Amino acid sequence: MRRAIVMVVLVLGGLAGLPSAQEAGHDGKWDAQLRTLPDAGRIRESIRRMSARPHHVGSPYGKEVADWIVAEFRSYGWQAEIETFDVLFPTPKERVLELVEPTTYRAHLDEPPVAADPTSGQTAEQLPTYNAYSRDGDVTGPLVYVNYGRPQDYEVLERYGVSVKGAIVIARYGMSWRGIKPKVAAEKGAVGCIIYSDPREDGYFQGEVFPKGPMRPPRGVQRGSVMDLPTYPGDPLTPGVGATAVAKRLEVADAPTLTKIPVLPISYADAQPLLAAIEGRTVPTDWRGALPITYRFGPGPAKAHLKLAFNWDIKRLHNVIAKIPGSTYPDEWIVRGNHHDAWVNGAEDPASGMAAVLEEARAMGELLKRGWKPKRTIVYAGWDGEEPALLGSTEWVEQHDADLRAHAVAYINTDGTGRGTLDAGGSHSLEALVNAVARDVDDPEAGISVWKRLQASRISEGHEEDRKTARERKDLRIDALGSGSDFTPFLQHNGVPTLSLAFGGEDEGGIYHSIYDDFFWYSQFSDRDFVYGRALAQTVGSIVMRLADADLLPFEFTAVAERADAYTKELQKLLETKQKEIAERNRQIDDGVFAAIDDPRQPLVTPKREDVPPAINFAPLLNAATRIEQAAARYQKARDAAGPRLASNLEVVRTVNALLIQSERQLLDPAGLPGRPWYRHLLYAPGYYTGYAVKTMPGVREGIEQKKYAEAESEIVRVAAALDRESALITKAADALEGVR
Amino acid sequence: MRRAIVMVVLVLGGLAGLPSAQEAGHDGKWDAQLRTLPDAGRIRESIRRMSARPHHVGSPYGKEVADWIVAEFRSYGWQAEIETFDVLFPTPKERVLELVEPTTYRAHLDEPPVAADPTSGQTAEQLPTYNAYSRDGDVTGPLVYVNYGRPQDYEVLERYGVSVKGAIVIARYGMSWRGIKPKVAAEKGAVGCIIYSDPREDGYFQGEVFPKGPMRPPRGVQRGSVMDLPTYPGDPLTPGVGATAVAKRLEVADAPTLTKIPVLPISYADAQPLLAAIEGRTVPTDWRGALPITYRFGPGPAKAHLKLAFNWDIKRLHNVIAKIPGSTYPDEWIVRGNHHDAWVNGAEDPASGMAAVLEEARAMGELLKRGWKPKRTIVYAGWDGEEPALLGSTEWVEQHDADLRAHAVAYINTDGTGRGTLDAGGSHSLEALVNAVARDVDDPEAGISVWKRLQASRISEGHEEDRKTARERKDLRIDALGSGSDFTPFLQHNGVPTLSLAFGGEDEGGIYHSIYDDFFWYSQFSDRDFVYGRALAQTVGSIVMRLADADLLPFEFTAVAERADAYTKELQKLLETKQKEIAERNRQIDDGVFAAIDDPRQPLVTPKREDVPPAINFAPLLNAATRIEQAAARYQKARDAAGPRLASNLEVVRTVNALLIQSERQLLDPAGLPGRPWYRHLLYAPGYYTGYAVKTMPGVREGIEQKKYAEAESEIVRVAAALDRESALITKAADALEGVR
Repeated sequence: MRRAIVMVVLVLGGLAGLPSAQEAGHDGKWDAQLRTLPDAGRIRESIRRMSARPHHVGSPYGKEVADWIVAEFRSYGWQAEIETFDVLFPTPKERVLELVEPTTYRAHLDEPPVAADPTSGQTAEQLPTYNAYSRDGDVTGPLVYVNYGRPQDYEVLERYGVSVKGAIVIARYGMSWRGIKPKVAAEKGAVGCIIYSDPREDGYFQGEVFPKGPMRPPRGVQRGSVMDLPTYPGDPLTPGVGATAVAKRLEVADAPTLTKIPVLPISYADAQPLLAAIEGRTVPTDWRGALPITYRFGPGPAKAHLKLAFNWDIKRLHNVIAKIPGSTYPDEWIVRGNHHDAWVNGAEDPASGMAAVLEEARAMGELLKRGWKPKRTIVYAGWDGEEPALLGSTEWVEQHDADLRAHAVAYINTDGTGRGTLDAGGSHSLEALVNAVARDVDDPEAGISVWKRLQASRISEGHEEDRKTARERKDLRIDALGSGSDFTPFLQHNGVPTLSLAFGGEDEGGIYHSIYDDFFWYSQFSDRDFVYGRALAQTVGSIVMRLADADLLPFEFTAVAERADAYTKELQKLLETKQKEIAERNRQIDDGVFAAIDDPRQPLVTPKREDVPPAINFAPLLNAATRIEQAAARYQKARDAAGPRLASNLEVVRTVNALLIQSERQLLDPAGLPGRPWYRHLLYAPGYYTGYAVKTMPGVREGIEQKKYAEAESEIVRVAAALDRESALITKAADALEGVR
Repeated sequence: MRRAIVMVVLVLGGLAGLPSAQEAGHDGKWDAQLRTLPDAGRIRESIRRMSARPHHVGSPYGKEVADWIVAEFRSYGWQAEIETFDVLFPTPKERVLELVEPTTYRAHLDEPPVAADPTSGQTAEQLPTYNAYSRDGDVTGPLVYVNYGRPQDYEVLERYGVSVKGAIVIARYGMSWRGIKPKVAAEKGAVGCIIYSDPREDGYFQGEVFPKGPMRPPRGVQRGSVMDLPTYPGDPLTPGVGATAVAKRLEVADAPTLTKIPVLPISYADAQPLLAAIEGRTVPTDWRGALPITYRFGPGPAKAHLKLAFNWDIKRLHNVIAKIPGSTYPDEWIVRGNHHDAWVNGAEDPASGMAAVLEEARAMGELLKRGWKPKRTIVYAGWDGEEPALLGSTEWVEQHDADLRAHAVAYINTDGTGRGTLDAGGSHSLEALVNAVARDVDDPEAGISVWKRLQASRISEGHEEDRKTARERKDLRIDALGSGSDFTPFLQHNGVPTLSLAFGGEDEGGIYHSIYDDFFWYSQFSDRDFVYGRALAQTVGSIVMRLADADLLPFEFTAVAERADAYTKELQKLLETKQKEIAERNRQIDDGVFAAIDDPRQPLVTPKREDVPPAINFAPLLNAATRIEQAAARYQKARDAAGPRLASNLEVVRTVNALLIQSERQLLDPAGLPGRPWYRHLLYAPGYYTGYAVKTMPGVREGIEQKKYAEAESEIVRVAAALDRESALITKAADALEGVR
């Protein structure tokens, strides 16, 4: 049947000036038509419209934006509704940060409006600078500088003999999700946590500051959530269930994902007097930022007072849910979303991504008028409350858990986007699909396809092995997903095959989560022609349509199998490296090397002897990886062989699709990951101590990293079992396809 | 005979409380006695005495210091004289640096006295801040920031489409010898060069600044020579001959080693307004320093005016030459030196090293009184004019070229020294000797030998292969020498086996070549107990005495052979890497990768296609390396076998020693290196574009680096021939030893 369609397109294309079959690719005419429709001017106008005023959770303009999105969807011919949830969303009541010794300084804790920037002065509607889900607190203590505040930074502190017990730590933003910083600080005994934006990361060190340039000005502050997202995202009071009016709620005091200590983000203008007052040893080179001071560890003599109190209110979320019902398989859903809430005006985050969503929706509405009937149901979502911690998406997924398990084919996410190459992450079963679409979308700058440009950038930036892969492998690899946007509940809680997409890499910025992330900034310093917004709508729109219209769902498993094997080998290597490192360190301890090299004027604490990690049985994983490789190859072969005959075997297609829809679910385990049952995917999770960055085969990997070797070994068995479930399903699908004559 | 001595020592040691034979090592009692004599208090006093006032070339106190050193030597029982040379030494007449557009700023160009520091206020005697051997000039041009000003930095500028033609470049100190910066800038068409001390390198980024800490204060300036030292060091007017009264001199205008453009060093306080006024593209991350600004390329709009005029005077150098005549082999000289001139007060550079020299000399004087009679002549030197460009040592070596070729057994150099591990570089034929001595000297902090501590630091800092070598190889490797101190003429012009030694690594400082390198700084922030000064005297004194007293000179050639093989393999690898890189880049150019990834808002210039380097015949070197390995092994075996019988075969010893003395000379070629005939050593030279840092097998290596592949190939033949000469000499020595019955 597909071949037949291609023939028709060829004729129609010739007649009506539509793209030729070759240009449209093998997926037919409709998605090629879609790619002609997104309009940069409309993207510009949507971004301007949504970012015109601050629109955080619970704000008047937030509700207005949601209503406007609903109206837009409806105007395009979609069904659209608002679905609400009621969630805990704290906002600041009192914020005090002051240096009390040896000199005094009171932090400004605000971002000055900029004359040239028309929305920066909307102070009445702006949320103050704060970290959401910090506890209340009133603490005083010596300051200790802890670099990025990651576990490995505390290992350095230990070597230098610096304790944070009773201290207020000051950490710089970057290198880990911000919520990790107070989490680790509290584990180590700190009583408070300050997070600041060092100019090294996104201030003058990186480029000219706003408003003359795109980087963070001295008083710019990064707001953001510090909830313990790697334990579970979403409403802290309703883990695992939708935060409906009737949901059973935890007491705020019992919510496990709030921070254990008060935490506050500050600007580098506010940080400099604090950091300059810290004495003690000079920190190592890679701990030093770009302020014109000597960075030192402390503790003290600088002493700070941090006082924070919040309104612990329940606020209403407004998720926009829009639909086009499927014509053939209405119970198979393609879900696609982007959040609409912002910390302040949020032109980049999230309006730039939400504008693409709207252009896709408008284009599909146009195609409906032209006669397009998607086979599957398309569900478009505008999530509320992403910024505080994926609230809208998480509550929706929790609320519709059973339906999603039965019906969801895939989830495609976007968030803020910019100019440059395609950044694609997600389930490796969708790798071939995203590659196919990227070959059909034009890069707005380079006069080549998005795929070709991405390939060129992989060749240019990669090492020898990466270059070879980029040149010779059929598809460009996509990244595994950790967290940081609304895909998390779909992929890691519910097992929906997921993609997350954006363009980027060509513009740097320092306005993230500040009042300066607004239309003035975006239209000067990011995708100012809005052509990458259009490319994003073309890319995601095409993916959605191919998923919605395909007879046989375009899933492939060879990339999944390849990753399973690669992750296993990485883990073996990780263990081996740990074994070698610890054995070497023990040897150096035994040989007195640490004592011998110690500088008595700058002494270091000799590390303690540690047991060398034991050998671990990787055989179950290695065998499972082999089996899934065989199953994936068989499926691929059967699919290719059956190809032309599938049109006359739609019952087989239906059977196989039903299996494919359940394929990602095989990788879940209802028991979840060790210590965090909400996360049920055994291949991908945000790291418990990274927050956003992915840990693949997280149970095994974090077992090794956290020195729980027995746990790592039992996790190997669980991951192997998940891969075997997947292999069995793929084999069943292959069996069905092999039956096609 | 050696065994017999040991027996005697054992008895005497027991009687007189001297160190036991075991403690004294196999080299007998005298050097063990020497190690008991250097005194930290005297080192302190010598440093204080020499650094009490500024004592640069031609200064009144410079002469006083030389006279004082002569008197000290004489008081210890040495013969000592001053030997003078008359050299070109420019000093500033006029220095103007000003920003003239878009705003104006006039640079201070001075270093403020610090109240706590008693010598920092001796302004009348201080040399102004300048770079010696800069041309006169009066230029105005746009500023371009060129990072460290190395050739590879200009490759980056080219990619960014930035030209320095007609510009004044501003380069930061570091990563290359300072004289390279104006040299490359002039080659690229710049009209002036400013060099500044970025706080990233030795200012607040590294630690607390002076006087509270050891690092460079905002207005501290690094003086220094910018002569084209890789062409030839020493007096620019008398290349190759001693600058005596009667020497034929070049006209100043014809001196090839003066800079081609005016160059001036400045502080970071003076640099900041200049750098902040530069616009254009932001530089790459590794180009950015620690000033609180955005570093940009320019050119302009910042425009600077640089005006420099110098007094082109001939100044008199005062080398101190002291001697103890040898009792048995008076015509075999052990030469040892350190410079005594400083840029200003120079407590670290050079007084800390010169103080060790004096303690060695005093200790040897004491041993003479106790009856010690060195077999060979010991020559101790206090060089003048090292700072401007190794003037005193170079002129002395050139003047005594024939004598040194006939008589010099070895040259041992020191310069500034500090606290930490032993830093040893030099001829690999002396590697075993320096290791043996390091085993016999106590580290003042760690309670273990200097050798053990160095081994521990190699184990601690090294990668797997280095750790293995440090643990398992008999000796710790010593570095090859480039330039940067007075060893250069001995090793690279004259072919004297050379060592250069210092302690360091534990204290950082930012006072190099400033008025703050003085006793106040040194006694607070460096070897303040002066115990490493003592350790240095113990180490070098022991080396000198073992060389002076040995029957058979303690030369070994296995390390030389090992290095010959290692350098050859490095060069093969270097060529292979270049071939791969250029082939890959050509492929990317052909495939349009550069065009594909280009950001139209931040375009880069696509590099030009280049010919892939041809294969080169390394066989002569590989074969020569094999031959020298065999010869060295044979020599070692013959020496070990002959050992006890040598005492009764002193004629053989004499024959072998005569060969050994000529061994390093075999590695010279009278034609010198390509384009720089003054440098005659074919294994070690300072890089033509690094200045201090060594290039081993420089003719071959720089041929490959500079894409002169035919030259590299013919240099291989020359280096192989030098190694073969060395092999023949070693074989002759082995033959002689094998004849011992």
